Amino acid sequence: MRSATTIAFKRTGSENEGKPPEQDPGNDSAEEKQEAPILRPDHEAKDIPLITVANMGNQTFREPQSTKEKLGHRRIDEQGAVSYKKVPTNALMQAIQLGISNSIGSLASLPNRDVLLQDFEKVDIVAFPAAGSTITPSHSFGDFRFRTYAPIAFRYFRNLFHIKPADFLRSICTEPLKELSNAGASGSIFYVSQDDQFIIKTVQHKEADFLQKLLPGYYMNLNQNPRTLLPKFFGLFCYQSLGKNIRLLVMNNLLPQTVTMHEKYDMKGSTYKRMASKAEKSKMYPTLKDLDFLENHKEGIFIDPIALDTLMRSISRDCLVMESFKIMDYSLLVGIHNVELGIKERAEQKELSCGEVRPSTSRDKEKVEVTLSKDSGDRNSDEHKVLQEKFSVWDTLDGDVPHGGVPARNSNGDRLVLYLGIIDILQNYRLLKKMEHTWKAILHDGDTISVHNPNFYASRFLSFMNEKVFKKGTAHLAATTPL
Amino acid sequence: MRSATTIAFKRTGSENEGKPPEQDPGNDSAEEKQEAPILRPDHEAKDIPLITVANMGNQTFREPQSTKEKLGHRRIDEQGAVSYKKVPTNALMQAIQLGISNSIGSLASLPNRDVLLQDFEKVDIVAFPAAGSTITPSHSFGDFRFRTYAPIAFRYFRNLFHIKPADFLRSICTEPLKELSNAGASGSIFYVSQDDQFIIKTVQHKEADFLQKLLPGYYMNLNQNPRTLLPKFFGLFCYQSLGKNIRLLVMNNLLPQTVTMHEKYDMKGSTYKRMASKAEKSKMYPTLKDLDFLENHKEGIFIDPIALDTLMRSISRDCLVMESFKIMDYSLLVGIHNVELGIKERAEQKELSCGEVRPSTSRDKEKVEVTLSKDSGDRNSDEHKVLQEKFSVWDTLDGDVPHGGVPARNSNGDRLVLYLGIIDILQNYRLLKKMEHTWKAILHDGDTISVHNPNFYASRFLSFMNEKVFKKGTAHLAATTPL
Repeated sequence: MRSATTIAFKRTGSENEGKPPEQDPGNDSAEEKQEAPILRPDHEAKDIPLITVANMGNQTFREPQSTKEKLGHRRIDEQGAVSYKKVPTNALMQAIQLGISNSIGSLASLPNRDVLLQDFEKVDIVAFPAAGSTITPSHSFGDFRFRTYAPIAFRYFRNLFHIKPADFLRSICTEPLKELSNAGASGSIFYVSQDDQFIIKTVQHKEADFLQKLLPGYYMNLNQNPRTLLPKFFGLFCYQSLGKNIRLLVMNNLLPQTVTMHEKYDMKGSTYKRMASKAEKSKMYPTLKDLDFLENHKEGIFIDPIALDTLMRSISRDCLVMESFKIMDYSLLVGIHNVELGIKERAEQKELSCGEVRPSTSRDKEKVEVTLSKDSGDRNSDEHKVLQEKFSVWDTLDGDVPHGGVPARNSNGDRLVLYLGIIDILQNYRLLKKMEHTWKAILHDGDTISVHNPNFYASRFLSFMNEKVFKKGTAHLAATTPL
Repeated sequence: MRSATTIAFKRTGSENEGKPPEQDPGNDSAEEKQEAPILRPDHEAKDIPLITVANMGNQTFREPQSTKEKLGHRRIDEQGAVSYKKVPTNALMQAIQLGISNSIGSLASLPNRDVLLQDFEKVDIVAFPAAGSTITPSHSFGDFRFRTYAPIAFRYFRNLFHIKPADFLRSICTEPLKELSNAGASGSIFYVSQDDQFIIKTVQHKEADFLQKLLPGYYMNLNQNPRTLLPKFFGLFCYQSLGKNIRLLVMNNLLPQTVTMHEKYDMKGSTYKRMASKAEKSKMYPTLKDLDFLENHKEGIFIDPIALDTLMRSISRDCLVMESFKIMDYSLLVGIHNVELGIKERAEQKELSCGEVRPSTSRDKEKVEVTLSKDSGDRNSDEHKVLQEKFSVWDTLDGDVPHGGVPARNSNGDRLVLYLGIIDILQNYRLLKKMEHTWKAILHDGDTISVHNPNFYASRFLSFMNEKVFKKGTAHLAATTPL
């Protein structure tokens, strides 16, 4: 592997996290209009192009520039209705469901076979005329086309992730999707399936292209590193209508909404301006950053040594893959459910609703109890503070914990369940390509700057997780923590 | 996958097996002299180039054209000494051992890590000056360089095939290699390790290039189709000296010499002129072809239904991979050890050596007994002819037989052990490229011609194996076979 030269650049603002201002929104395919810039709402007016119909025939229209709020392609009008690339998200959602349903359904009729290298590059296209066709139903969302990227490869991935076609269809296509309001800084639309299992996210053209290039390496990582923390990609699709392409990535939902995340961290291993904004912190469940973690968890989070070793080895293998694809700027997302707080909260809720005859159907409660079933029952909430379990942070759990919910403790001895995953692995490719072509490599701050060369980024990321975030839950802990 | 248009061409002779005469020996790299044509000994004088030193500096020499016998790059002089590209094979062998030993040794000092997509394209180069260097010993084979292709990827493959570095080194580098005299029609040199496990074969530049391109697909096939019958590739190397590049492929030895192969077939699924020559048939252990098989095994060979299903499914998956890489003209090599004949032969040998006090150290005998250990002992040699084992051709074997030795029966009821593998998967790429560029597509005989389009080739290959070669060892067999 080549160890690339160090690339860095100057920051322009605290919220930009080292991302250079977007200069050129990129040349999309002829079928697609130029993508509006992300992260630059001040430039939006200039960048909204006249929408002309490129692939649908004979219509042309101009939309009034009356958007109330816009971030990237995502707009909210005066009535609060959300649109993406000016397609109302509600209609978009239903068209997507139609498209995915058709795609998965027709795939199910094909015999199972091995994935070939060539499958990663394949794209299936199906036309959905509003009037219906021999293979598609009639609908009210206007003529559109629906592309399925690498259908056989994603079928293989879904299979590896134990997602059955019928379950996938039921989750994504049967009930309406929930649209997430906190779309984040990227200006993407996020849908979540009713059962909370899947996220459908709009991605940029270059992100989709990059994912396709990444697929063989992604396949290899899944094969060799089955505990990988990389996102689970279940499908990549594209809705095409009126000259617009909206690309959709179906992923796992890392932080189940049914489990209360008492803390949430997005960590990159950098300390340079890595602190959540005041606005973010004022939210009920803010997403905090590296410096916030160091402040809140001065001693780190304690994990069973064997589980820690497994976890760090998986992260390290993931980092190697990302380095080999020159990916940077990814984060480790850590959702922390505090078991003791959860118990207290449920007790308070029970007290509040004491008079009422309220059956315990609360979804939240059930889910948490399922997650923690091994631990409930025969322990009282104080007992755990005696950290006598020398080499196991929770003595009721095996070393073989699923990476979706890693048992841990904070320095107070509270039992925690960690939801971990590496996120934002596609965005930076676009950024990097730009940097290589248009940005001068300036070394800013060799040790703290967030965006750097992939090798440096990966090793700093790993060191931070290994030294600051996760600690071995060993015997000495009892001595150093206040009981 | 595209279903390519049908490509075929006229035959020029019975021995050419549908291979077009080599027109252009191909443009090799600047470092290497043009490769002499294969299969055309009559043209050899014209094609032997003046050997000049391209990459080693200041020497130039011309060799007298006094070769007695030449096939491809392989020559045998008047004294019977073999050379390849005019390098005496004895010195070549030792230089190779030095190179492989260094390559595997230095790899062992690197920490184990996952294979990355980029690893398939990597090439390591080490200089071996005759005087020695800090990392290489002094030697008497003249300065040379040694390339290791995709070292990490092949380490992964060796690991998958359960080949430990120390065993690999011991087999290949410790004892002298045996050079096979029957190099076949390709003009390649074949070495076999003393322990009979490995074959080292010289390959053409284009074959090596193609193998590198094939590696990601090969990786995927190994991952998805663990019982694959494709060759086991253990390493690809290149010896470079005096402007010559000699590429070496290390593979498994499909037909262990320690087991008597009473019959050997190279089958392509074609019947057009697929009959061994008289010269070949006059050999002690000739390699026969499709038509010979049909003649000798009119009813096919009988395999346990479950094993047959597994076998055919694996071959079918292999064919899909080859089709996707547009590979054609591969063969199924079938080595047949006849257990009854083996027993008879050993009995005869025993009788001959009856007077002598001869300890049973015959390697042949031991090996066969190991292979057949489950079946020996409690059955006499006639009993087997009663085919009462309805769904198992040998009732002592599990369904889970290794593909290296599949138990079977012929129509006489003789117990057979089959050694199976798909061979010659690299050669045809070069042929195909030539065809596409220089040959006119003429449809000769849509059903019997051997070289065709990859899809047609694969399905004809599969049909032949499924319908003519392998049969289910079921109950009806007892009725149709003469007991």
